[in-house]
Amino acid sequence: MAYPLFSDEYFMNEALKQAQSAEQQGEVPVGAVIVSNNTIIARGHNMTQQLEDVTAHAEMIALTSASNFLGSKYLEECTLYVTLEPCLMCAAALKWAHLGRLIFGAPDPKEGYQLVEKNVLHPKTKLKNGVLENECGVMLKKFFKERRR
Amino acid sequence: MAYPLFSDEYFMNEALKQAQSAEQQGEVPVGAVIVSNNTIIARGHNMTQQLEDVTAHAEMIALTSASNFLGSKYLEECTLYVTLEPCLMCAAALKWAHLGRLIFGAPDPKEGYQLVEKNVLHPKTKLKNGVLENECGVMLKKFFKERRR
Repeated sequence: MAYPLFSDEYFMNEALKQAQSAEQQGEVPVGAVIVSNNTIIARGHNMTQQLEDVTAHAEMIALTSASNFLGSKYLEECTLYVTLEPCLMCAAALKWAHLGRLIFGAPDPKEGYQLVEKNVLHPKTKLKNGVLENECGVMLKKFFKERRR
Repeated sequence: MAYPLFSDEYFMNEALKQAQSAEQQGEVPVGAVIVSNNTIIARGHNMTQQLEDVTAHAEMIALTSASNFLGSKYLEECTLYVTLEPCLMCAAALKWAHLGRLIFGAPDPKEGYQLVEKNVLHPKTKLKNGVLENECGVMLKKFFKERRR
């Protein structure tokens, strides 16, 4: 499906492609992209299995990559698109980065940062969720269903 | 000062040496070591400025390094010594890693994970704090005092 260029759905679809890459590599399918001025400056997908590293979440990889690209550890002008609600580790990292906007697809009722009542994100970070929620969620459900077999 | 070999103070002193390295590089002086079977298997210190990366906290660097060394993303048999109470990002990472024991030196009343009421660490992680608290805290206070000048 073609989404309008530079729309949130367009960029979330790019994050979904990252999730797909993760899935093909046997990883829990979560993907992320970071956008600055309508340009994707970083991509990442979950690599915890391959790297044997719990910190190798899609968001963390994209965040480090974007900071590296910009030469700045602050991402105030950036939007991060991620297919799944970030966990506490990733949300706290996004706070440290003063992220401009966070857009996520599917909610994570088990490990999502929103389980913590305190405000985890930076007060200036704008939040939008539910972008391509169905597509993002279906990919995860399918993965876990197949893994249980 | 010589601390008894393999005591918590001994290993925290090793973490302090890492913090000292950070300080010499103009970084906020926080250091960490990870110990398995009385052997230091990973060391790390804060590198957020040099790497321009908010995720480059002492704990995260040590954690990735220890996982790499062990070839396992789980650190159930490991103890992490860190000079400052971990932030939310690091504590959540330690949860994902199923860390065995967390020992920290000085509390962090501004950014420490204990500000969040929910239990952030893994339920099996044993916690001890206040080890060489004074030494750990003094180094941080001195750093910030000099920086304010």
